[in-house]
Parts: sequence; structure tokens; C-alpha cells
Amino acid sequence: MVVGGDAAGLSAASKCKREDPDREVVVYEKGSWVSYAHCGTPYFVKGEVDELTDLLSLSPAEVDERGIELCRNHEVLDVDTEARTVSVAGPDGEFEQPYGDLLVATGAHALTSPVDGTDLVGVHTLHGLDAAAGIRAHLLDPDTDHLADVGGEAFVDRERVERYGAMDPPETVAIVGGGYVGIEMAEAFSTHQCDVHLFQRGAHVLPPFGEAVAERVEAELREQGVRLHLETEVAELTGGEGRVEHLVCTGGTELDTELALVGVGIHPNTELVANEPVETGPGGAIVVDDHGWTGVERVYAAGDCATMEHAVTGEQDWVPLGLTANRAGRAIGSTVAGDPEPVGTIAGTGVLKAFDCEAGRTGIIDPDRAREAGFDPVSETVTAGSRSGYYPGGSATGVTLVADWDSGLLLGGSIVGTDRAAIRVDILATAIEQGATVGELERTDLAYAPPFSPVWDPVLVAAKVLRGSIEEG
Amino acid sequence: MVVGGDAAGLSAASKCKREDPDREVVVYEKGSWVSYAHCGTPYFVKGEVDELTDLLSLSPAEVDERGIELCRNHEVLDVDTEARTVSVAGPDGEFEQPYGDLLVATGAHALTSPVDGTDLVGVHTLHGLDAAAGIRAHLLDPDTDHLADVGGEAFVDRERVERYGAMDPPETVAIVGGGYVGIEMAEAFSTHQCDVHLFQRGAHVLPPFGEAVAERVEAELREQGVRLHLETEVAELTGGEGRVEHLVCTGGTELDTELALVGVGIHPNTELVANEPVETGPGGAIVVDDHGWTGVERVYAAGDCATMEHAVTGEQDWVPLGLTANRAGRAIGSTVAGDPEPVGTIAGTGVLKAFDCEAGRTGIIDPDRAREAGFDPVSETVTAGSRSGYYPGGSATGVTLVADWDSGLLLGGSIVGTDRAAIRVDILATAIEQGATVGELERTDLAYAPPFSPVWDPVLVAAKVLRGSIEEG
Repeated sequence: MVVGGDAAGLSAASKCKREDPDREVVVYEKGSWVSYAHCGTPYFVKGEVDELTDLLSLSPAEVDERGIELCRNHEVLDVDTEARTVSVAGPDGEFEQPYGDLLVATGAHALTSPVDGTDLVGVHTLHGLDAAAGIRAHLLDPDTDHLADVGGEAFVDRERVERYGAMDPPETVAIVGGGYVGIEMAEAFSTHQCDVHLFQRGAHVLPPFGEAVAERVEAELREQGVRLHLETEVAELTGGEGRVEHLVCTGGTELDTELALVGVGIHPNTELVANEPVETGPGGAIVVDDHGWTGVERVYAAGDCATMEHAVTGEQDWVPLGLTANRAGRAIGSTVAGDPEPVGTIAGTGVLKAFDCEAGRTGIIDPDRAREAGFDPVSETVTAGSRSGYYPGGSATGVTLVADWDSGLLLGGSIVGTDRAAIRVDILATAIEQGATVGELERTDLAYAPPFSPVWDPVLVAAKVLRGSIEEG
Repeated sequence: MVVGGDAAGLSAASKCKREDPDREVVVYEKGSWVSYAHCGTPYFVKGEVDELTDLLSLSPAEVDERGIELCRNHEVLDVDTEARTVSVAGPDGEFEQPYGDLLVATGAHALTSPVDGTDLVGVHTLHGLDAAAGIRAHLLDPDTDHLADVGGEAFVDRERVERYGAMDPPETVAIVGGGYVGIEMAEAFSTHQCDVHLFQRGAHVLPPFGEAVAERVEAELREQGVRLHLETEVAELTGGEGRVEHLVCTGGTELDTELALVGVGIHPNTELVANEPVETGPGGAIVVDDHGWTGVERVYAAGDCATMEHAVTGEQDWVPLGLTANRAGRAIGSTVAGDPEPVGTIAGTGVLKAFDCEAGRTGIIDPDRAREAGFDPVSETVTAGSRSGYYPGGSATGVTLVADWDSGLLLGGSIVGTDRAAIRVDILATAIEQGATVGELERTDLAYAPPFSPVWDPVLVAAKVLRGSIEEG
């Protein structure tokens, strides 16, 4: 039995059913959408993705064809891991259901604290397809046929779409939080001709990417007309008649705004097992072992509600991202079906598009975090061309590498640029997952051809400089 | 002392002088060009690179500033490794010169056999800047100021440029050989509005890339109007008054042509040490150890004339490419200066642009070659999207992976597509150099964001499929 019908849950259900077709596999999903691509929602709001249903990896019909019993609009209220039962609230009332194996794949929810006033109409988080549909409806002219525009009429929250669709498009938009969601949505709002203000509490956007990436992304945001308010903490959203009208920061900055997007992070949904002997750890997520097992008999967890082992530290960590959710779900599906498969490790690899700029990060970049994990971090940042200097179309590419002083072990890195920059972070992720040293990375036989890379790829230049620093002590 | 003033030679000289500034470093180069980018010449012919001098990594003046004594137009005729002397022919006559350490960085030369008639005017190889200048002069209108157009007047073979510049541009061009040079030049000639015919002896172009890449590249070439003649061996080029007019194949195919480019491979230049106790091996290249040492006291070799250790087989192999030449030269420069540094290994990573298509390869793809090295190869090819399906601009990306059946060790792979395809081969190169298994690759935490990759990157899809094949036996 699976609780949660998104990436981890449906990957597990599909794999289990494929490996063991006689097995009864039930998925309870409290909402009406299943198996959708969170990461695509900014591009749906932007308009690059036509309809909500384009974001579904699997339709309910396809899930059905796989022989999975999918129960949408069914919320699992409680679990008794001793009796091995769950209690479920569905459209026809509550019932108890026994399980053989249980996968908790309940995901996470968007945080809104510590900002006050987030219950006002016009304040959004980008969590789920209904939220995305509401924002897009808000951005388009009231004359639009909003239900037809967003698509997915069978599942969508029609009331929400119609309510926001009736409003005039906002002239000024406030984004609270400069993480992935905030930056991707800045691009989406700009496309709709809004005046976009982005508020970030810390000194830089994108803290997990490090300063070198942040500064380049900030320059790109400004270049594209986004008003950045760094080191500016939003205290409160206020309004009249239940609608947001105004934003107030702790330092006194104020802004009139008709739409606010709050993207200050997410928190794992673990209430279901709060009273069970299931351990929670980093980020409040459910701690699991290398097979996604919670330590409670026959109970597994995966996706945004669970931890995974970090490739660099070897410790359980919480980095909620799409690929790892899919992979862990799939592995647990295989394990439960009788073919044990490890869920793998995470390196915390993430990439981001910010208008014409692209950035990637992996591993441990923050020196304090590296020291906590017992390393003595040393870091170098270089800027090098993405192509041979004489070949047109190249771009200055910034690479930061972090390594352990004693061992030379590569701990993390980031890349920023405009020409095939983000995808290059996969080189670093692969090296890190393999336990490569900086010297080994420097001597790696990477590709060279003028249209794609200079003789020394920016990654190799960074490795060369960092190894030099380490050797000179 | 260094013989050869290109990538390996000047990398070594620069590094040695930097590490040990008191050291006397002499470089003899038989031609007039030094430190130029071979790989850029097709783009110079195409016209994307303005002048020959744009292709120089270092000007002679910059070499001078580094304190290196650079002797252009000096051919080293002979070496006596017992007496530790070389005999040199320079503009002012012949002389003997003693050396402390000797680096043989003599490069390679373009093959023309087994094609007859390659000495005719109008038959070119793409070897060196003068050759490239001759071809570009031939392609442009006779009214052009060719010397000004190609640039680099201080060094260029003026007579060659003027002779070809006086000719009418060819309507029909024949390319003999479907390797890197042949395909890159097909693009260059097409840009100049020539009818391009490409002749390849084997069943497919680009043998080192494997069939899956070849078929996609062939489709692209045809799409772009290149006439492909596969399984067609060119026997002879014939002409009148010393100029090429006609091409004849062994199977009877004939073609009238005014310009023929022969790109059938290169051979290492090892004549200099032919009478010395220096071993040659794969491809006829000088065999060296992991520090580039030939086994003869104080004699090193690097670049296109030398072998390097293959990361997969652990054996010496000959894969003449730019990065490895630079890296080996640099390492030897450091070693000779007293700071021993390994030259590293090669994975045979190569990438290629063919019009709008890009391809990469690394490691061992050919099953016979894998078996020779003691592996039991198993291979899978997949085609998967380069971006999330709902995100615009993605491209079908073909990935082939080869692994050893017993160990799961990744042996090689190729990638082909139009959207950030070639650079993805660096993921495979890194995995191979680290000795990763297919299962480890499958569980690698690669980047995911809709503009750059689907949840499961094509590389991960291929790893998943190949691991499945191995497990099912």
C-alpha cells in the first residue's frame, strides 16, 4: 500500500506491480492530481507549457492499465503499524484498511511562515497544479476562458481558477524568497509583463549554490528588470476585504502589490507517522536506511518526506528533489516485490534556469557544512570560456570547486553561465558520487571540440587551480 | 629541449620554465607556425573563424615572454640518445646541439594512401594552417585579397595562398574519408555552396562512434544536402596539367571534381627516433610510461606521436587528441622541472559537430576491441528526450552504453542529438575514468530541471536499460 500518488509513490507502485504482477497494489492520494511534474509548474505559469495535463507523467487511466488500484481524493488519516492498518477518509466516508507493506510517500508542503497575512486572496505558494492554475488565471485577462486555458478540467479546482480568473491581472508582483521557485517564477511573471520585486532575507539568492553563482544570477535578474531586495525580510502581507494590497518588511521597506508569491521553502509531511515509532531527522524528514526502510516492520518512506544518504558525508540528509524521489520509489517497489535494490545516494545536484543564465550545483559547497561533516574545505572559483576562444557563441563560465585539504576529495561544486553551463554540473556529480579527488578530476579525459569546449574545459581549469592551491598549502 | 612547437611541446616548455625559471628551455619547430589549434581549422575554412592568427594559443612573442627559446623553421634531423645531442637544420645551416632532457613532440602527419594521385593540385589534406589557408583561398572568389583574408601574413605560405586564390572556386568537392575531418569539412564546404560528396570505405561514417551515432549523423548529412557514398573506396584521383579533375572508386563510381579533401587518418611522426632504442607500439606511436618517459634515459614523448595509458584497458594506446597532448606535455614539463606528475590516462573521449547534430564518444565501444581487452561486452542503445517532454526545445537523444557482463564495469558509450548532447559524454568519461559500474551510473544523482533534462536523463535511461539486460542475463 502506498500513501501519496506522486513521483515516489507511483514509481514504487509501478515497479512493484511490474516485478510481481499478482501483488495487490493500492495507492491513496488525498488530492485529485497524481503523478505530476512539480518542476514544470513555473513554465506552465509562464505559458511555455500549454495545459496542466501536459505536466502529468501518467494519467489515472495509465495507472489503471498498470494494474494499480488508484484511489484519488482519499486521505489516509492514521496508521497503526502494530496492527498494520490505515484509516482512510474517502468521498464515501471513512474506513480501515489492512496492509502488507506500507510506503509513506506523502511529500512536503510549502511553508509560509514567518510571513503574516499569507491567507489573503492573491497570496500564492507554488505547490501543486491547482495553485499553478490559480496563478495563471490571475495573470491572464479576465476575458480569457480560464478553464479551457489551464486544461485538466476533470481534476482542476474550478472554483479557484474561476475566482482568480475574474480578477484583473496584477501590475506589480512580489516574490518572497530567492530559491528555485522564486527565481523561476520571476521569469514567469516577467513574461506576463508584471513589475517583479523579489525579496530575499539573506545577502544572496540561491544559498545552496554559493556566492559565485548567486552574484551572476542576481546580475541576470537585474538585467532582465527584476527588482531585487536582498537582506530584506518580509514581515507581513496586508490588504483590504481579504485581498492582498501591501507588503511590509521588517526593515521598513513597503510595496503595493496585487499578487504575492511565497516561496520560502517546504517541510516534509510526516504527521501520518507522528505517533508511530518512526524516527525523523534532518529537515524533519523520516529517516530511512539504504533500502528506504524506516526501521518499523514493513514500513518504508521515500520522496520529499524522507531522508537519503548523502554521497559525500555518508549521513542521512534531506534534499527533496524529483529524480531522487523517483529513484527511491522505484527501488522500494523492487525491494518489496522481492528483488532488493538500494535507493542510492544523493549528491544534492540541482540546476536552475534564470532567464538566459543557467546554473548547477552538487555536493557540499558551504564551508561550515563541510566542516560539520569532518572535512577541511578549500575552494577556488574560476571563470573560463565555454568554447575555444576563436569559436563564436561561447560564454564566460564560472566554476567553483570545493575539496578536502588533506585528501583532495572533491566535496562539491557549482557552475554558472549561458552556454551549456548547467549540464556540466553532471560531470561534478558523477565525480563526487565516485569519490574522485580533485587531481583525478583534473586528469579526466573530457571532450574537446571548438563548438563545445576549449581544450581545457572550465571544469578542468577549476580542478587545475584548486589542486594547485592544495599543493602550495 | 623540445622537438615540436605545438600543443604538447609548448605546454611542456611553458610548465618547465614556470616551475624552474633558471632552466634553459629550447623548442625547435620545423615549420613557421607554433601553438595552433588544429581542431579549429574546419571553422576557419568555413569562415566562422576570421583569421589564421585567431587559431594561435600563443604568439611567438608570448612564447618569448615566457623565457622559452623558440627556434622556428628549425628541423631536428637526428638524435643521438647516447651522446645526448641532436642535429638541427636551420635557416643558417646545420648544427649539433647537446640536451639535458629531450621531449619528442613531433606530432603526426596526414595519410593519403591508399589513394593515388594525391599530389595533384587541388587535392588537400587538412593538416596545418597553411593547408587550411590554401583551401579557404581556393573556395573564395579570385578577386578576394586572399592574403589579407586569411591573415597571419608573417608566417603563412604566401605562395600557396596566392596559387589557390587565383583559381575559380570549385562547384563540386570530394571528401575522401568520413572521420572527424571529413564530416567537419563537409559542413565547411556546404557553407561555401559547394556540391559536397563524401566517400567512406566502410559501411558507416565515424567508426569509433559506433553505428547508432553514425546513422544519425549520416541522416543529418543527407538532410543538409551532402551526397554520401558509403562502402565506396576511392582508388584514384586523376587530372590534366597537374590539376585534379576526376575521382575514381574501386567499385566503378566516378565523379568530376575540382577540389578533393583527403582525410583518411594520421600517422605519428617517429622517424627522428627510428634508429634509437625507443619502442613504438599501437598505431606506430612511441611507447611511454605513466610519466611520458620513453625508457631511454632523459627522453620523453608526448602528443600525437606518443601513446598514453587507456583508462579502461590499462594498456598503452594511441588516441591522438588535443587535450591529452596538452596535459601530457604539461605533466612532463613539471616532471623534468623536478616535480614528477603523471600524464594521466585517456578514455578516447571525442566530440563532433555535424551541422545541427552533435555527437560524443568515450571508452571502448567496439565489441571486438572490448573482447581483445579481456571483457565480455554487452551493449544497449536507447533514445530518450533531452528535456522534460512538456518543455519546448528538447531533442531525441541517442545513448549507447557498453559494459562488461560479469563486473558491470562501464567500458564505453556514445551520445548523439541536437540539444546539449555532445557535452553529456563527459558524464560517461568521468564515470569510466573512475571505474564506475553501470549500476553506479544508474544511481548517480544527475541534474534535473525541465529546460535541461527530464527526470531521468537519457544517460540514466540507458544505464537503467543496460543494467536490466545484464541482470536478466
